[in-house]
Amino acid sequence: MALARIGGRGPSVTRLGLTREEEAARELVGGWLAARGARVWTDAAGNVYGRFGGDGPAVLVGSHIDSVPQGGRFDGALGVCCAVEAVETLLEAGVALRHPIEVVGWTDEEGVRFGIGLFGSAAAFGRLPPKAAERRDASGVSIAEALRALGRSGDPTEARRSKDELVAYLEPHIEQGPRLADRGVALGVVSSIVGIAHGRVTVRGRQDHAGTTAMGDRRDALAGAAQMMAALEAAAGHRRDAVGTVGEISVRPVAKNVVPGECVFSIDVRAPDDRGVDVVLRQFKQAMRLISDVRGLRTSLDLLAQVPAAPLDDGLRGVLRRACAAVGIDAPELPSGAGHDAQNAAHAGIPTGMLFIRSHGGSHSPREYAAPEDYALGATALAIALRELAG
Amino acid sequence: MALARIGGRGPSVTRLGLTREEEAARELVGGWLAARGARVWTDAAGNVYGRFGGDGPAVLVGSHIDSVPQGGRFDGALGVCCAVEAVETLLEAGVALRHPIEVVGWTDEEGVRFGIGLFGSAAAFGRLPPKAAERRDASGVSIAEALRALGRSGDPTEARRSKDELVAYLEPHIEQGPRLADRGVALGVVSSIVGIAHGRVTVRGRQDHAGTTAMGDRRDALAGAAQMMAALEAAAGHRRDAVGTVGEISVRPVAKNVVPGECVFSIDVRAPDDRGVDVVLRQFKQAMRLISDVRGLRTSLDLLAQVPAAPLDDGLRGVLRRACAAVGIDAPELPSGAGHDAQNAAHAGIPTGMLFIRSHGGSHSPREYAAPEDYALGATALAIALRELAG
Repeated sequence: MALARIGGRGPSVTRLGLTREEEAARELVGGWLAARGARVWTDAAGNVYGRFGGDGPAVLVGSHIDSVPQGGRFDGALGVCCAVEAVETLLEAGVALRHPIEVVGWTDEEGVRFGIGLFGSAAAFGRLPPKAAERRDASGVSIAEALRALGRSGDPTEARRSKDELVAYLEPHIEQGPRLADRGVALGVVSSIVGIAHGRVTVRGRQDHAGTTAMGDRRDALAGAAQMMAALEAAAGHRRDAVGTVGEISVRPVAKNVVPGECVFSIDVRAPDDRGVDVVLRQFKQAMRLISDVRGLRTSLDLLAQVPAAPLDDGLRGVLRRACAAVGIDAPELPSGAGHDAQNAAHAGIPTGMLFIRSHGGSHSPREYAAPEDYALGATALAIALRELAG
Repeated sequence: MALARIGGRGPSVTRLGLTREEEAARELVGGWLAARGARVWTDAAGNVYGRFGGDGPAVLVGSHIDSVPQGGRFDGALGVCCAVEAVETLLEAGVALRHPIEVVGWTDEEGVRFGIGLFGSAAAFGRLPPKAAERRDASGVSIAEALRALGRSGDPTEARRSKDELVAYLEPHIEQGPRLADRGVALGVVSSIVGIAHGRVTVRGRQDHAGTTAMGDRRDALAGAAQMMAALEAAAGHRRDAVGTVGEISVRPVAKNVVPGECVFSIDVRAPDDRGVDVVLRQFKQAMRLISDVRGLRTSLDLLAQVPAAPLDDGLRGVLRRACAAVGIDAPELPSGAGHDAQNAAHAGIPTGMLFIRSHGGSHSPREYAAPEDYALGATALAIALRELAG
């Protein structure tokens, strides 16, 4: 709740990455860690770390401290709080650490201000896009300038960690979907983080008078797009755990009495494995071509981004399931449809696990809510998992 | 071509209703009519008339003198020129007038500046919407102010004609569709002007995370709207000469990774008879309700405007067909999918006929084109029809 007050107003939290609000949250978390005996530092990207124990490769645990605009109190922040609580529990119980434990608060997971999601973990695991520091926000400030304004060097690539420094990465996080709530279970273990393809479809037909052009004579870009959207929905619906979404659409011209000559829409395709994404994309493209041929449209698909699926570590899935069982939870394994910092760790070759905590009211909204009894179970299970890995 | 230079730039003409450009066009047309011996006046709405012959009810003939932005040289203007030419031909041939003939140049048919289409003829035939004079353009100028700036009283309802003053109304106009060009025939006779229904459909679903919401758990407003658009296309396609168009669409929020919670789209439904419009609307509404039920959407249809179909006068259709035959054209009868000033005359109970002249390149575009040999035939056929009606 102390964290939620930074950038917060009632249950609504606006704490964007690489802002003064996020810096204040970082100082608060760093203070908690220092008070529990950690060595605390902030890296060149703005991630805050607190290290407990001696030398050698560490077990890393944490989540992100930023939020979306008008977001909630739990997305990201709850995972950081659970990590602090879990380590404190181990220390209070006098568990000797075989491996050091590092708690991390990632910066700018949401990527709202600069458009690079998972920014802090991408910097730490060498997965930033080229020239990331030069990206600018809507008011023209670059990432480099924003970092320097917060006292950093301005070069986020300096935050890179070596794979050898880390034994494992564990991330507790609210589930952003309703599956745990629907099943009536407090905790879940993530099997994989979905692969995502983002694309832009441009449909070009012929602009015509809506009154004087017979239905059979039209090359209606929007009517063709409607059929393509239905094809995307069907392709995703036929593949288990795949989703396909059109979230943006526009036509030209915009006039009620003109047959649209052009329609542009976005596609977002996700599946727990890369093959699932490929199958849905391939089916969509086939439908797109057929519909375009039949209707006399010229249609192109630009793939803007394609993030591979991140299967999480088998061993850590077992560790987390056993830890959940120890607190009385038969935790199901389920894929994460949202992206997480954990995927950067997994793609960097670090054994990675994720623990989902039941959330009501979705996420990215002041209505998101995790119950204290659920996150108490989550923090306890996390402590048990950390004891198995580092104790 | 003299008319096309007013507001024109090459083949592109921008001569909006109730502007200085349209006023200049009015003065040019009034000058032509006066030079041919007409008594010329402009009414309170801005329509220009020229009357030939003595007292008693007149045969009215003409079209409109305004254009859309970046329109062409022929839409409206060609009909006014053909009317002037036809009357001159009768006068030169020494035809005695049983009924006087009035040539009219309607103002603001396109309704671009103030949003009231068919403005001049609506004023003349008592079909203006309530408080029309108070409507304002984008810069806040009202119709009343625009009329006063052109030297009129500011009250367009003063332009109203009595039904008893007119024997018939004939309007020559380019066909705004491709049917005459496709059939290889220069002239056509309009059977009816289509009925039009304009509506706005609002689909309300549930905004969700595109990654964490399974396909089966969604209430996707846009996916539902896509299915409804397909239903509109099918309903219109199954009814002869009916058309159905979605020209405007928007979603909320606009984000590639969010399932749209709301989608608003326009519908434009037209058919040569009111029953056709009703049938298509009814089928669309049935589909809309079924799709909404199945998908858990709340959908409403607001009918913004419904203009009844205007069947044109049987006797005048015969007069025009015979006149076309006299110039060697076997003119087909065909419905007009676009609205025309003629529909206001027909709805006011005045026997009304329309002659279409073949146009290439559609309309409302600098590419619209009627060939001199076609409009010479049109003017000659019009003169023959006027001789039968007024000679």
